[in-house]
Amino acid sequence: MPTIIGVDAIDVRFPTSLNQDGSDAMNKDGDHSATYVVIRTDDPGAAGYGLTFTIGRGNDVCVLAAKLRGSPLVGRSVESVVGDLGGIYRLLKSDSQLRWLGPEKGVENLALAAVMNAVWDLAARVAGKPVWRLLVDMTPEELADVCDLRYLSDVLTRDEAVAMLAETVPTRKARIADLAESGYPCYTTSAGWLGYSDEKLRRLCAEAVADGYRHVKLKVGARLEDDVRRLRIAREAIGDDTRLMIDANQVWDVPQAIEWVRALAEFDLLWIEEPTSPDDVLGHAAIRAAVAPIGVATGEHGMNRVLFKQLFQARAIDYCQIDAARLAGPNEIIPIYLMAKKFGVPVCPHAGGTGLCEMVQHLSIFDYVAVSGSLENRVTEYIDHLHEHFVDPCVIAAGAYTLPDRPGYGARMHDASVARYAYPSGEYWASGSAAHRLRGGQ
Amino acid sequence: MPTIIGVDAIDVRFPTSLNQDGSDAMNKDGDHSATYVVIRTDDPGAAGYGLTFTIGRGNDVCVLAAKLRGSPLVGRSVESVVGDLGGIYRLLKSDSQLRWLGPEKGVENLALAAVMNAVWDLAARVAGKPVWRLLVDMTPEELADVCDLRYLSDVLTRDEAVAMLAETVPTRKARIADLAESGYPCYTTSAGWLGYSDEKLRRLCAEAVADGYRHVKLKVGARLEDDVRRLRIAREAIGDDTRLMIDANQVWDVPQAIEWVRALAEFDLLWIEEPTSPDDVLGHAAIRAAVAPIGVATGEHGMNRVLFKQLFQARAIDYCQIDAARLAGPNEIIPIYLMAKKFGVPVCPHAGGTGLCEMVQHLSIFDYVAVSGSLENRVTEYIDHLHEHFVDPCVIAAGAYTLPDRPGYGARMHDASVARYAYPSGEYWASGSAAHRLRGGQ
Repeated sequence: MPTIIGVDAIDVRFPTSLNQDGSDAMNKDGDHSATYVVIRTDDPGAAGYGLTFTIGRGNDVCVLAAKLRGSPLVGRSVESVVGDLGGIYRLLKSDSQLRWLGPEKGVENLALAAVMNAVWDLAARVAGKPVWRLLVDMTPEELADVCDLRYLSDVLTRDEAVAMLAETVPTRKARIADLAESGYPCYTTSAGWLGYSDEKLRRLCAEAVADGYRHVKLKVGARLEDDVRRLRIAREAIGDDTRLMIDANQVWDVPQAIEWVRALAEFDLLWIEEPTSPDDVLGHAAIRAAVAPIGVATGEHGMNRVLFKQLFQARAIDYCQIDAARLAGPNEIIPIYLMAKKFGVPVCPHAGGTGLCEMVQHLSIFDYVAVSGSLENRVTEYIDHLHEHFVDPCVIAAGAYTLPDRPGYGARMHDASVARYAYPSGEYWASGSAAHRLRGGQ
Repeated sequence: MPTIIGVDAIDVRFPTSLNQDGSDAMNKDGDHSATYVVIRTDDPGAAGYGLTFTIGRGNDVCVLAAKLRGSPLVGRSVESVVGDLGGIYRLLKSDSQLRWLGPEKGVENLALAAVMNAVWDLAARVAGKPVWRLLVDMTPEELADVCDLRYLSDVLTRDEAVAMLAETVPTRKARIADLAESGYPCYTTSAGWLGYSDEKLRRLCAEAVADGYRHVKLKVGARLEDDVRRLRIAREAIGDDTRLMIDANQVWDVPQAIEWVRALAEFDLLWIEEPTSPDDVLGHAAIRAAVAPIGVATGEHGMNRVLFKQLFQARAIDYCQIDAARLAGPNEIIPIYLMAKKFGVPVCPHAGGTGLCEMVQHLSIFDYVAVSGSLENRVTEYIDHLHEHFVDPCVIAAGAYTLPDRPGYGARMHDASVARYAYPSGEYWASGSAAHRLRGGQ
């Protein structure tokens, strides 16, 4: 088995702010970026690729944090790493000096996510399986051992985790066959960015329905009258049979969220996403009680499993939106899926940012096959955006993620993309528009 | 008025792990460090000094984040900055690309704290006042304008904030006179680090009482039988009239915390500090209900004002332990003091880390004079540790912080200390023990 000889963390930034892809009420000019981690070994054919997603400035801060976080891997055999995915996670997390900088949140958790996603990718490539299959093929005990259950035992013990996973084993094969036939359902946010014109919104909504989507999401929260007008356009374009969701990206205080969402109730909304601070468990619970039957969704900024535990305990959300690159990889995410099942909350992951769709499809598939066993009220975000930079991009057909069959976690980028968009030395940034150089470098 | 020509962020690390100062069940070998920010102007006599506290590795990550966060100050007049401390805070926070990396937590909040603490220091130096006096001399409306009230309006409106501050104005002078005479009460943690021997523990406890302390705190949580033995030694050494607190530094799950603390109840404990994850609002509420009359304290890792809002709403804590360098400066901390008053929770700040005592004394004094108006159940942490590196170190007499009268926030270090302990280029690290060079650089 080869040995790990280096863990690279590379600052890759795409100039998405140029055409307001990704614009919302909180994030007006993001440059979708990645802290891209490559685990190199002394076998040129054995490597692991992972990332965390950021939106521009500060990606260098994550890169530095990822370098520190990944350095204990260097010199270890690939076998010792991929053979003990729980132990490696605990080792990388165990640095108490780095822990002080979180703990388990913000830049440090983003960095750990980038590194652990690369570790899981490496493990899947070594096994010759996509990550979803690697997870499904682990025994309930093996899976429980990779789970980070610390601070969760008041709602989820190891024994419960094992029992929940064991319960799905006999029926997993049938669900894999389902997905091979129909894929995992997704929804599109591409239609509704806040910076798009009414005409573009109308056209994209109609196209989404024509493409087979049964869910469309719009950004809201800048001006109420704009939201009313845009939702009317969207509802006309998609008809009554397609579900419509809205996303405020944390712009409101709790009382304002309640008032604003109630003012939009006429548009038959499935959920309001990120109505307020992602840290405000009790605030989400208050909003949920006040705006029902409109559901409350949050989680893309959910910092760690302890926050999700409380969102479930407080009955604060109707839809749980984990993120594959803000939580610290499958080790932290699987326990959230297990808690979600216990509390009866469907998980509808966040995606769309650089590489997030490529990774998160594996988690949704794993959830259906091995945890929830259900597709009811479940739909995973998809945005048609930046996939051309990935070696194994996700494949969407008729509003669903097609079951991926290539080994790994999907986050490997084309070398040419990394070279061109590496910041600030890549060809695009070194020779690109001065405005972008300045903005990115501020 | 001068102009800001640079915002430096310097990586300063002290080798405190050598003698286990600061050792506890979670943090066994911290090197107490600072991300030290200096706001330079074109007037050599006008500068601002601030910091955030870390414990070694990863301080470089905070330094990079602080450089990014502070850069919008460069080129602004000192007048425009110190004359609009609310506007400057909002400006520095408004970068939506950096916001993605938190939001408002972890490395990014530590970095913002370092920069804003330097801004407040600059403002106080320009005014020729200590920060506590600068705060006390602001009108209730001016103070409310510097407060970050976003996401708080369900429990604290601007009008309430103004009214609470206005209520204390007539009696402030008398309380300042109190403090000038008796100081602000503090307690010591220096006696109880986990790495100390029983003999050292016994001697330091006895010394603490002899020095006038009425409160002593011990680290716990590694092994129950050690905790029982150490608490017995401490209680014997301090007698029945001195309050005894324990601190578990987040090592327990919720059920384990309840069981362990109940097993220590015989030692008449005032509080259990950080029994579990600092993010677990509902967990703290459950522990509090189970271990009463022992109080629950937390907050040194409390990431932002939204977390504290929920700790108050959920009646999760008996003592609120804000940190001057993890929260984003006085702009974020004052609203927490106001919420604490509204909910009747005494604020007993965390301190002890590099420069924390120097800064936090200003906040405790401000609280007594302008917010709570009370010293009941209030005591601020003090550790006799690293003060020699500060130009205006805090002064302790008879178990109390003496009212500081020098202009600024207290975080300015001696140039010689910065030069010697700058990492990795300072004289200590460049020429010091190889073991430390390796450990710090890992």
